[in-house]
Amino acid sequence: MADNRVVVYAGPGQVAIENTEYPKLEIPAEVAKGLGIKQAAPHAVILKLVTTNICGSDQHMVRGRTTAPVGQTLGHEITGEIVEIGDDVLFHKVGDICSVPFNIACGRCRMCNEGKTGICLNVNPARAGAAYGYVDMGGWLGGQAEYVMIPFADFNLLKFPDRDAALEKILDLTMLSDIFPTGYHGAYTAGVTTGSTVYVAGAGPVGLAAAYSAQLLGASRVIVGDMNADRLAQAASFGCDIADLSKGDSLTDIVADLLGEPEVDAAVDAVGFEARGHGAGAAEAPATVLNDVMGIARAGASLGIPGLYVTGDPGAVDEAAKIGQIGVRLGLGWAKSHTLVTGQCPVKQYNRQLMNLILADKAHIAKAVNATTISLDEAAQGYAAFDKGAAQKFVIDPHGMVRA
Amino acid sequence: MADNRVVVYAGPGQVAIENTEYPKLEIPAEVAKGLGIKQAAPHAVILKLVTTNICGSDQHMVRGRTTAPVGQTLGHEITGEIVEIGDDVLFHKVGDICSVPFNIACGRCRMCNEGKTGICLNVNPARAGAAYGYVDMGGWLGGQAEYVMIPFADFNLLKFPDRDAALEKILDLTMLSDIFPTGYHGAYTAGVTTGSTVYVAGAGPVGLAAAYSAQLLGASRVIVGDMNADRLAQAASFGCDIADLSKGDSLTDIVADLLGEPEVDAAVDAVGFEARGHGAGAAEAPATVLNDVMGIARAGASLGIPGLYVTGDPGAVDEAAKIGQIGVRLGLGWAKSHTLVTGQCPVKQYNRQLMNLILADKAHIAKAVNATTISLDEAAQGYAAFDKGAAQKFVIDPHGMVRA
Amino acid sequence: MADNRVVVYAGPGQVAIENTEYPKLEIPAEVAKGLGIKQAAPHAVILKLVTTNICGSDQHMVRGRTTAPVGQTLGHEITGEIVEIGDDVLFHKVGDICSVPFNIACGRCRMCNEGKTGICLNVNPARAGAAYGYVDMGGWLGGQAEYVMIPFADFNLLKFPDRDAALEKILDLTMLSDIFPTGYHGAYTAGVTTGSTVYVAGAGPVGLAAAYSAQLLGASRVIVGDMNADRLAQAASFGCDIADLSKGDSLTDIVADLLGEPEVDAAVDAVGFEARGHGAGAAEAPATVLNDVMGIARAGASLGIPGLYVTGDPGAVDEAAKIGQIGVRLGLGWAKSHTLVTGQCPVKQYNRQLMNLILADKAHIAKAVNATTISLDEAAQGYAAFDKGAAQKFVIDPHGMVRA
Amino acid sequence: MADNRVVVYAGPGQVAIENTEYPKLEIPAEVAKGLGIKQAAPHAVILKLVTTNICGSDQHMVRGRTTAPVGQTLGHEITGEIVEIGDDVLFHKVGDICSVPFNIACGRCRMCNEGKTGICLNVNPARAGAAYGYVDMGGWLGGQAEYVMIPFADFNLLKFPDRDAALEKILDLTMLSDIFPTGYHGAYTAGVTTGSTVYVAGAGPVGLAAAYSAQLLGASRVIVGDMNADRLAQAASFGCDIADLSKGDSLTDIVADLLGEPEVDAAVDAVGFEARGHGAGAAEAPATVLNDVMGIARAGASLGIPGLYVTGDPGAVDEAAKIGQIGVRLGLGWAKSHTLVTGQCPVKQYNRQLMNLILADKAHIAKAVNATTISLDEAAQGYAAFDKGAAQKFVIDPHGMVRA
Repeated sequence: MADNRVVVYAGPGQVAIENTEYPKLEIPAEVAKGLGIKQAAPHAVILKLVTTNICGSDQHMVRGRTTAPVGQTLGHEITGEIVEIGDDVLFHKVGDICSVPFNIACGRCRMCNEGKTGICLNVNPARAGAAYGYVDMGGWLGGQAEYVMIPFADFNLLKFPDRDAALEKILDLTMLSDIFPTGYHGAYTAGVTTGSTVYVAGAGPVGLAAAYSAQLLGASRVIVGDMNADRLAQAASFGCDIADLSKGDSLTDIVADLLGEPEVDAAVDAVGFEARGHGAGAAEAPATVLNDVMGIARAGASLGIPGLYVTGDPGAVDEAAKIGQIGVRLGLGWAKSHTLVTGQCPVKQYNRQLMNLILADKAHIAKAVNATTISLDEAAQGYAAFDKGAAQKFVIDPHGMVRA
Repeated sequence: MADNRVVVYAGPGQVAIENTEYPKLEIPAEVAKGLGIKQAAPHAVILKLVTTNICGSDQHMVRGRTTAPVGQTLGHEITGEIVEIGDDVLFHKVGDICSVPFNIACGRCRMCNEGKTGICLNVNPARAGAAYGYVDMGGWLGGQAEYVMIPFADFNLLKFPDRDAALEKILDLTMLSDIFPTGYHGAYTAGVTTGSTVYVAGAGPVGLAAAYSAQLLGASRVIVGDMNADRLAQAASFGCDIADLSKGDSLTDIVADLLGEPEVDAAVDAVGFEARGHGAGAAEAPATVLNDVMGIARAGASLGIPGLYVTGDPGAVDEAAKIGQIGVRLGLGWAKSHTLVTGQCPVKQYNRQLMNLILADKAHIAKAVNATTISLDEAAQGYAAFDKGAAQKFVIDPHGMVRA
Repeated sequence: MADNRVVVYAGPGQVAIENTEYPKLEIPAEVAKGLGIKQAAPHAVILKLVTTNICGSDQHMVRGRTTAPVGQTLGHEITGEIVEIGDDVLFHKVGDICSVPFNIACGRCRMCNEGKTGICLNVNPARAGAAYGYVDMGGWLGGQAEYVMIPFADFNLLKFPDRDAALEKILDLTMLSDIFPTGYHGAYTAGVTTGSTVYVAGAGPVGLAAAYSAQLLGASRVIVGDMNADRLAQAASFGCDIADLSKGDSLTDIVADLLGEPEVDAAVDAVGFEARGHGAGAAEAPATVLNDVMGIARAGASLGIPGLYVTGDPGAVDEAAKIGQIGVRLGLGWAKSHTLVTGQCPVKQYNRQLMNLILADKAHIAKAVNATTISLDEAAQGYAAFDKGAAQKFVIDPHGMVRA
Repeated sequence: MADNRVVVYAGPGQVAIENTEYPKLEIPAEVAKGLGIKQAAPHAVILKLVTTNICGSDQHMVRGRTTAPVGQTLGHEITGEIVEIGDDVLFHKVGDICSVPFNIACGRCRMCNEGKTGICLNVNPARAGAAYGYVDMGGWLGGQAEYVMIPFADFNLLKFPDRDAALEKILDLTMLSDIFPTGYHGAYTAGVTTGSTVYVAGAGPVGLAAAYSAQLLGASRVIVGDMNADRLAQAASFGCDIADLSKGDSLTDIVADLLGEPEVDAAVDAVGFEARGHGAGAAEAPATVLNDVMGIARAGASLGIPGLYVTGDPGAVDEAAKIGQIGVRLGLGWAKSHTLVTGQCPVKQYNRQLMNLILADKAHIAKAVNATTISLDEAAQGYAAFDKGAAQKFVIDPHGMVRA
């Protein structure tokens, strides 16, 4: 008898809903065994999903660009209500509504102590860092589901102080699990501050969140580049300038026209390894966007790189790219004394302060990324629309709590 | 009539001493014209060279790996005595002995205001940043000479407080113009601090200075890697562990053997674009060292990259490398959330504090890099020996002040 | 024959306009002599004042709370047009309109190198730091005048890129010389960032600028405390919450009522040593405000203290306070692990980025502080009104350029 | 039947050994009740003490300078072997030898997330922050005992990697629980770095640890001031200069004689509220040391203040001091743009890296502070000798494991 339903990868271009067991207060067997620790998890809770979003990084798996097996459960953007609680969960209780960082972290290792929850040492025997519902990320079950288990709950959960206020702003708050902090991390690590001019490469949800965050950080001008007209229009809707790269114009010229100088103070790569060259019909060129942001960023700039680069890409354009080795114009970056900041966003470093801003009615991220609510059964349509470039961020509402 | 003598590039593998004019209190015509400013330089001084060192980056020009023309003057590691002074030099006087940062900086632009003197906006019409005696770096005359002009002297000069004390420690102090701060910058930007384990790629003078600086910063263990036995012996002479890469052993294995774990807290690339693969007969492979340091550095680490990467390399192994585009394993770095810090060392950020340490007899950098004094007429022999891999740092003594 | 006119202190409660000489390209004799440097200043320019504001710190002198002699020239908030230029001013030209940081700084000493222009070592023989028209600050002539000399002009001047655009926003831009950066410094050093709750003590111009800056830095809530109803209304006019301290209510209770908790993330003391106790008729109590902000700030907070505390106060309430020694509740701060950040704002660290924000039409500081233009001849009325607590920031327009 | 023995406060000037119960895996009832959480502690371990040191801050209680009741258990400098383990302790096991930070911290609250473990929000209902065996610090039992309970063990414990290596260096490692990190924190927050000149006020164990840490951080000169000749001799033993304040000489003159200038780059107050004036027979003067360090520190300096300042001092010299309000020369600090960093050291920020340095044989803190081993039964003699100013750090060895 099935007590839970979860979205799974069902082969290239396909997702399905699978019936599965109700989760237990246990960590994955492979993590317990790999690390030599107990499987029982008194530190965990079970969440009933309030919302769970489809992410661009899920698409890498669904497109068959990873080694994810058929049946891989999906979903790492999780907001939910606590329905069951372990013996060592002291500071949360049943009924709390919480946001869950997509990075799974123990809160007890050296990396977590330093705030680097994206590379926790105790949640994935294979490497530093783990996530829900992701290939090579520790085998934790996905959160595009009805129920999900969250380990180290006192550390990982961000409780919304008031249930009613939270449900009222749930489409904004649901972005705290990943893309709002991830976009903010991109802008923040690019050094965006009061008065900065900023270029953000990519107008997907993370790019839009980075652009919106750049505004929150005090940017004087934010330019967003993409080849998708709908996504560019979305960026323009909240006051960004746009760089339409679909026509082959030089990015440098576009920026010079907008700003009166061909460089910006800070730049963000919100695209990553599936980058394409510019202009109609351009082929995939994995370092294009990174080389672009090095070209357009002022000497002395930092480059925020929230866009994903991978260590293994079976579908890559060449042998080097298959192991994540790509043609970076490092000489250019070096001549400009650039600093490159890579890696997963450590969500916990930002989610509390962004929540406070949302609850004070000073951040409207759902509108910026065009949040669109769907049911769990509509997940496949959401994936398909997103893959075609819809300028939307799909929010799954498994229990009808948002639509209510 | 010649009143000055200076080392010049005389064709691949060759340097010569050229008779030339005594310098004037004027900036290069190309800089004045390019920036639309006065050539007269009341902010400048003339220095009589006390010492001037041969640098590994000079070798790139002498090997013909750059577009430097025959006749290019050389030398950017300058220590000297003020012999003439402009009207707007207020805080220095004739007779002061001073160290000169190799980066030429105006002290008046936004980048200098931020301490980023390696990318000053007012000294090179072609790009941010300038240096003495270097191709594409603004046309400033080289300092491997008897006399040299130093612009913006109140900003650029670091005065030694006591003349006699300075001359006594001159072989240490001469390293303040470039390699000691550059090595320190590498270690510092790699995040080396109390207790760190550190890997430094390259045992040339900058690598040795980085290793020595890592010790000053409190490292618990420092491993230096190279393929040159003499240079490795030099690293071992002041307490470093060594990784002999000449035999094709895996760097990971060497580190694991030394430390009991296959990773270090911090890593420095002190080699740059002329890197070679490992093992006897290995060919040039420009991203090898950078990929190595990403492999060996812990998740969450910063990588200090003082090794030079260029935007144009006529002698490169392939077309991409000729424009400085090289095969970086960015996916690996991204998975580890690495931060890459590139660019010229902004010498002024470090030279005062390192001077204080030398004068307090707590830093012996000359011994660490095996400083070796030669005359100006012996410059060609110095270049040749250094090119062959001598484990020495050559210090030219144009007026016999060191040997006295 | 008089070629310049300047506001001077004319005895307790009095200012006057004095005819004086047209300024020369020379530094004050006492600075030249005290430091042993040339008086001639090829690094200087003469500015024709466009605007020059009355500052709360001028009031300390005019109230007779300092050792300023009768005849002390006044004015350190300077915006002007270059009308004469020294031989070593390379990057500015006659006709440029520029903002001048109130801190006079050489750009050539260790402190300036570190960005600490408020404590430059080369402009005041008596101590670190100098300012225009201020007692004990080096003897530099005041800028509430028609013309003023600015030393080290390439370093000190912030040029507005476009003359017409500058004149159009001149009431905003005039705040760049002091109070906008000073308020920003208070908020910034208090650690205000995205989502912070903030308390600002004092609704004078600096307090208002700190509150406005806290909003720019992303605060979720900003509370401003004062006893002056007009000034509180000014704070409320741009979205701040207010704490009316005139009635003797506990600040803790007011904050708890507003925020639902009795503490804020960050707090700013924008009052300083002339603080009074709370409630009607409260006496001067120099540490009251500082102790308040320690009481209201969360454990772990930083306290930004742009409010002035002095080393000598002839009019103080007791002997200890006359030498600047006051009863600080250090035990409270220590128990909360507070960090206290004191001192003059180093204006150059912030003025460029704030200018960019103003020119991009994203900061409206003139409205926030209620900028009010007066003529030079109306200076005395401006001082008097400000001393009575007018919720206005007076901007002197000596040549009628603003009113034009 | 007694299964544990612990040192307790037995009235002014007195300590005693009390028989007590063997500890349970439970948090104090007052903490559980005050915070509304479970008393059962699956996150805790029981440690068998290997070493436990007497701290200067214990003396405040024993001297009767606090509100500690008779019977208050003592001891917060704890190193021990795990003998029992809760169900949610995953990453430590029975037999591990570990250092325990004196700050008790949950690892799950906002402050712990930010690394501010000295002001954890979940361990003391009365205020932020807790400690073992200390008045007003949450009621946690003291660790000068045979056995002690450690909560949130995976977060709080620092495991020594190798048991034999640990026991060999146990007198160094025992300092990781408090004074080595506390001294390091003082030096670090004072901004000590490569080449700094440093003044440390106080040659007790924390002052010596600060001076030693300043050397590790690269100071060029370290001056230690005190009035106790033996303690000054101890400072001199590892290369510090000394300032003997017992004779009434001016600190400024002493520093000027030593350094050739009357100021240092960085200064540490390692004394706190029980400070006395200088010279023989000087009375207690609670802000003396803080005012001294403001006087001696360069403009722009940070002041590290690990010395304890309290909110309540029943034995203080005046009414203000009884509530921790003392006469700080804030005007002086403000004129110098000083930053004051106060509060308990967050031990976890430093203990791992200092452990690595000790284990690499590069830090010999036991010798610097003159570690002296005593039995549990000798605790009273240790307290008495320390109170008289012995230049020793007493290490209690309850089970004879050190002497073995």
